[in-house]
Amino acid sequence: MADIGIIGSGVAGLHLGLFLRQHDIPVTIYSDRSPQQIAESRLPNTVAHHHATLERERALGVEHWDPQKYGYFANHHYLGGPRPLAFRGDLRAPARALDYRIYLPTLIEDFRERGGGFELRPIKPENVVDLSSRHDIVIVASGGTGLSAMFPKRAAASPYELPQRRLCAALFHGVDHPDPKGMSLSVSPGHGELLELPMYSFAGHVTALLFEGLPESELADPADADPGEDAEAFERLVLERVRTHFPGVYERISPAEFRLTRPEDVLRGGLVPTVREDYARLPNGKYALSLGDVHTVVDPIVGQGANSASYSAWVTGEAILEDHGFDARFCEKVARRRAERTLAAAEWTNLMLRRSAAPHVLELFSAMAEDPALAEEITDNFNRPERQWDILSTPERTRAYLRARGKEVQP
Amino acid sequence: MADIGIIGSGVAGLHLGLFLRQHDIPVTIYSDRSPQQIAESRLPNTVAHHHATLERERALGVEHWDPQKYGYFANHHYLGGPRPLAFRGDLRAPARALDYRIYLPTLIEDFRERGGGFELRPIKPENVVDLSSRHDIVIVASGGTGLSAMFPKRAAASPYELPQRRLCAALFHGVDHPDPKGMSLSVSPGHGELLELPMYSFAGHVTALLFEGLPESELADPADADPGEDAEAFERLVLERVRTHFPGVYERISPAEFRLTRPEDVLRGGLVPTVREDYARLPNGKYALSLGDVHTVVDPIVGQGANSASYSAWVTGEAILEDHGFDARFCEKVARRRAERTLAAAEWTNLMLRRSAAPHVLELFSAMAEDPALAEEITDNFNRPERQWDILSTPERTRAYLRARGKEVQP
Repeated sequence: MADIGIIGSGVAGLHLGLFLRQHDIPVTIYSDRSPQQIAESRLPNTVAHHHATLERERALGVEHWDPQKYGYFANHHYLGGPRPLAFRGDLRAPARALDYRIYLPTLIEDFRERGGGFELRPIKPENVVDLSSRHDIVIVASGGTGLSAMFPKRAAASPYELPQRRLCAALFHGVDHPDPKGMSLSVSPGHGELLELPMYSFAGHVTALLFEGLPESELADPADADPGEDAEAFERLVLERVRTHFPGVYERISPAEFRLTRPEDVLRGGLVPTVREDYARLPNGKYALSLGDVHTVVDPIVGQGANSASYSAWVTGEAILEDHGFDARFCEKVARRRAERTLAAAEWTNLMLRRSAAPHVLELFSAMAEDPALAEEITDNFNRPERQWDILSTPERTRAYLRARGKEVQP
Repeated sequence: MADIGIIGSGVAGLHLGLFLRQHDIPVTIYSDRSPQQIAESRLPNTVAHHHATLERERALGVEHWDPQKYGYFANHHYLGGPRPLAFRGDLRAPARALDYRIYLPTLIEDFRERGGGFELRPIKPENVVDLSSRHDIVIVASGGTGLSAMFPKRAAASPYELPQRRLCAALFHGVDHPDPKGMSLSVSPGHGELLELPMYSFAGHVTALLFEGLPESELADPADADPGEDAEAFERLVLERVRTHFPGVYERISPAEFRLTRPEDVLRGGLVPTVREDYARLPNGKYALSLGDVHTVVDPIVGQGANSASYSAWVTGEAILEDHGFDARFCEKVARRRAERTLAAAEWTNLMLRRSAAPHVLELFSAMAEDPALAEEITDNFNRPERQWDILSTPERTRAYLRARGKEVQP
């Protein structure tokens, strides 16, 4: 029987580990942090799980947080500028944003209870070969200690050398959820975006604000502020930027109650969107497969990273179940099966990262604003980024899609 | 709405055309032969449709030939040599071999009745661009007039420059079907193979014998004989070769009744196994997609060609339904989705074409001979060549598979 080693205890590693344990396959996760250390860490992200990911959680038996209670039900859009546009897309099934410092330790516990091996030890690149001799294949699902470099960057799918946004994510009290309860994605043309997510964290039901600031814009300021030095100054800065750029969010804020939940509930930085090779052959003839962020790093602007990682874990698990070897053929199979979705997630994200919105994206937004059914369809495609990219990969496709939905479009 | 042009009225073109008509998509098939001409032609092949293909026929509403009556129920195997091995694999659901000179004209009629365009005109490579201006995309499903050359050969997947077998297929009276009614695949080591198929043709329920002779073997002699000159000499030659090499088939032949059904029921020649590129960009910016034999030519030794073509047609049809453009992204999508199965069919076939059977193939045969359930599983994989190739692509995989099925195997 196969024996699988997984480096990394993020969503990719855990969903794969849980999948394998459901089928009684021996699996060990190597983590550089204990559940306790994860729980006590700085805010790691502001991830939302779309319905397709929640369905995988249900199948894995880890649906501990009922999306009716912990989730949300709509994506609210706001496009600023001289003629602002506001519209929403209802979710056909709820999504859910849960603090990963609660989520991951709980799943580690599930994994261990179900017979999964969990070893607390950081794996460095020079230890991977050694580790591989203990397993049939090593899945590299954590890039934390330089492991990503095992998998060369795929230049054609990785157009950027630098982060395209300065990011600042933090959790706040004092923001009323939009109605229906939902996330909001607001664009301030020439400056960047604000994502707002109803999130469940240690402080209870709170709001995540994620600034996506163009590097030279004042929306990048929150990423440069240090709330550890002066939390009140940070809160004032955030409030001021929201007021100036995102009036629809600002009007739901009670300034008197607006405050950072906890000092550690802030994350600042930026990501270089990167797609890496799917696998590497090790010197001893065994193979290592990249998973999650090690395979694809996407900016959080359309919330695809964790969902893509979970999907990729599932595809990998299914291939492990059905296959008889862990060689190049196995790795190629996983690569081919996950390519359509994972590459689409990366390309769609990169389109949304352009400094100014592409005209065909604006055409789609206008159609969504006019037609709730169309807005719902596009919103549902957050579950299937390959469909979104079918629509958005060229202006011709967007117009063909709109025409097929009965819209008048310029020829 | 999309408008599709298909060059070729073989199984690939017709299954795709029928699929598209089922979804009301305008489609025109260009054929260099009329249904009448196809019906009157020389035996084109001795194709069997496996269950997966029959299921697609059912979905297309063209199940005119009940497999319980026209089909067969087992694959009988015989491996000659000093210690002959005979065993069978039962089919979980019947397969069916039907003369394509009956099959294709019937499906053309179905296609026309359902609103499909059918134009009788040979398309040469220099006419493809012209044709493409009438459609959103052109599907090239016939290589008859040099069109295959539009799609470069993929060297890594096309290891041969010459046919690996001299082929002679013909239909005969006077052969009792094996019990249970089935096809037989017999190997004469160092000489080649004989495929025997219960086939329905103009002469009724008859038997197709397909010699797969190594070029210098006497099993290549039938491919060099001309029954048009002397039908009785041809019959005597066939009978003699069956008697010498395939005793299990010979004992079911009544020599007094053994005769070729009709002079035109013979096909002789050979194929170079070839995998070609999935698509080509035309000078006018439109795309042409390869399908069926234009995409993959396989030797008939494990009966994968037509089934692969039908599968590929289905995948293409689904992509046409869901997509919004017919550009490189569309073609890449089809390529990626069909690659796992079509490439496995090609690689498995090529393995079976080796001059002497690979040791791990013999190990699998031995296990099949001992274990009917395992033989049934391998036989069922004729429907899913990717699973067969999961098992057979390396000796390590074959042994892992056998171990997982409780067999003792050498380490």
